[in-house]
Amino acid sequence: MNNRLKKQFEFILEADKEKQITRQNYLSDGSRRENDSEHAWHMALMTVLLSEYANEEIDVLKAVTMILIHDIVEIDAGDTYCYDPAARATQAEREKRAAERLYGLLPEDQCKKLRSLWEEFEECQTPEAKFARAMDNIQPLMLNSASEGKSWEEHSVRLGQILERNKRTKEGSEDLWKFAYEEFVRPNVENSRIIAEE
Amino acid sequence: MNNRLKKQFEFILEADKEKQITRQNYLSDGSRRENDSEHAWHMALMTVLLSEYANEEIDVLKAVTMILIHDIVEIDAGDTYCYDPAARATQAEREKRAAERLYGLLPEDQCKKLRSLWEEFEECQTPEAKFARAMDNIQPLMLNSASEGKSWEEHSVRLGQILERNKRTKEGSEDLWKFAYEEFVRPNVENSRIIAEE
Repeated sequence: MNNRLKKQFEFILEADKEKQITRQNYLSDGSRRENDSEHAWHMALMTVLLSEYANEEIDVLKAVTMILIHDIVEIDAGDTYCYDPAARATQAEREKRAAERLYGLLPEDQCKKLRSLWEEFEECQTPEAKFARAMDNIQPLMLNSASEGKSWEEHSVRLGQILERNKRTKEGSEDLWKFAYEEFVRPNVENSRIIAEE
Repeated sequence: MNNRLKKQFEFILEADKEKQITRQNYLSDGSRRENDSEHAWHMALMTVLLSEYANEEIDVLKAVTMILIHDIVEIDAGDTYCYDPAARATQAEREKRAAERLYGLLPEDQCKKLRSLWEEFEECQTPEAKFARAMDNIQPLMLNSASEGKSWEEHSVRLGQILERNKRTKEGSEDLWKFAYEEFVRPNVENSRIIAEE
């Protein structure tokens, strides 16, 4: 048991580094950028509160577990900004290597389980993965809107980019995508924090 | 539905402030202090990986949900350092008022559910609450040890204080308390990062 526990705590301690991976979006008051672990906590909290709006019934624990671990690979691979095409071209390969090293710290059964959950999230085919992906997209829309579009303006983000990024968000939840569009996107196109171009 | 969703997102956005509540312990590399949302994410991750060691079988989703929301009250009540008796004397009243305002943002059914989960965590009587409390205690022991006792040394923490703080940790998991004591506490008494006094 001690050897198993040592491996589990080696992974848990390594995961601490996720708190130092900075994202592009800011906290709601614009004071600083968010990090990956804060983003995952917020998405997990959203999931336990909003699962009633999933298009298909979801296993909430499975979705939450997927969310808690979905950005672990960024400890090695770094955060890839969703509107940076050059970084996105190499993202899959960097993240695959990262998954091998990081999930490989765990005992074999948990390595397989977490790696498979991460791949399921990436493939975005199951109800849980679709819902988790919707959370991954809606959470920063909410924070970008609250922080008066700070990150959108820094990157001159166009409506077309947001719609492309979110083209599958409604597969997780039609209701939540509709709400997010009306509350977080449309008002910020109207006040020009998002550039009104495709 | 829209009114319900507005209330849910009002709470979710307010919860963002948990990212600005600083704790006493540092990240594993000692570079900066941890915040409440990072702590909750780390505890939730520990729970999905370590639930096999719970003394009694636990409902993992219930424990994780409890963990995700257990520090929300600190948005209004602030973080209370576990070795500060003056702050601990007023903690219960401050946190009760905070729970009323913060959980009160949610639709009534979710307000009741989350408030009841938070009270269950505080009362520490059920298997899930005992396990969540063990995570709440073991996670900072791990980080304090990794960061070479930085926070222990700043506060001249004595072994007796740690043992008092952790007197119920083993009720969540005998195995994890034993491991934490052997790996994170005892070596730091031996090298004097923790003062070897009761």
